[in-house]
Amino acid sequence: MPIAAAPSSTAIDTFLAAVKFDAQGLVPAIAQQHDTGEVLMMAWMNRAAVVETLSTGRVCYWSRSRQAPWRKGDTSGHVQTLVDLRVDCDGDTLLALVDQTGVACHTGRHNCFFRALRGEGLEEIAPVVVDMPAESRA
Amino acid sequence: MPIAAAPSSTAIDTFLAAVKFDAQGLVPAIAQQHDTGEVLMMAWMNRAAVVETLSTGRVCYWSRSRQAPWRKGDTSGHVQTLVDLRVDCDGDTLLALVDQTGVACHTGRHNCFFRALRGEGLEEIAPVVVDMPAESRA
Repeated sequence: MPIAAAPSSTAIDTFLAAVKFDAQGLVPAIAQQHDTGEVLMMAWMNRAAVVETLSTGRVCYWSRSRQAPWRKGDTSGHVQTLVDLRVDCDGDTLLALVDQTGVACHTGRHNCFFRALRGEGLEEIAPVVVDMPAESRA
Repeated sequence: MPIAAAPSSTAIDTFLAAVKFDAQGLVPAIAQQHDTGEVLMMAWMNRAAVVETLSTGRVCYWSRSRQAPWRKGDTSGHVQTLVDLRVDCDGDTLLALVDQTGVACHTGRHNCFFRALRGEGLEEIAPVVVDMPAESRA
């Protein structure tokens, strides 16, 4: 159920009014592959990132480490095309259904959640599928 | 690929060492239904909640609003049984694969992400499926 073209600025304002940004002006956004259900990553959006994501249809976050807008895929080409943006009951978390080009994780794995307990150790349960540049932020 | 019984305290310590808790001692945890891929909710865990979740196999969060442990389902019966707990590449987000009893959302919807833009308005795109008590925190 993709968002039809770019929402109007009125519609974007309506969406923003439902979002509770935290004291840093940020809201966590979960990216999920729209057709497989795979949870790809979690990152943060500020108000401008939500506006850009909705208006361009390409997912944009706010990088807390760089304190700058993070247009996912700018350095790697691994962009996320927005399919739907949902806000939760409390307005403090977003779920972005996306179509991921390439891989979501800067390690070259398809998603970021590749470490889990197996027996006594933390294992990497997903393979590197793309050789990423050392400085890539995906 | 469920976690076999309760991990040892050594294994739990190994897991904890991979988690970067924030300045408030919390880490966001995404709950995903293990078989359907549905993203149910996002909440927060502190160190004790991670330990309890791993050692009991029942998902426990930290309630920021109540500043107390939140054993999901204590008031509603809608518990989450842990299937796998994963940590992301940066160690700052967890993904809990769970088996959700009943519904995840305190509104009585199956998941919390039920609001999205449709045309000019924010629509509720999922129905209430369980009549929840007014004060339930699910």
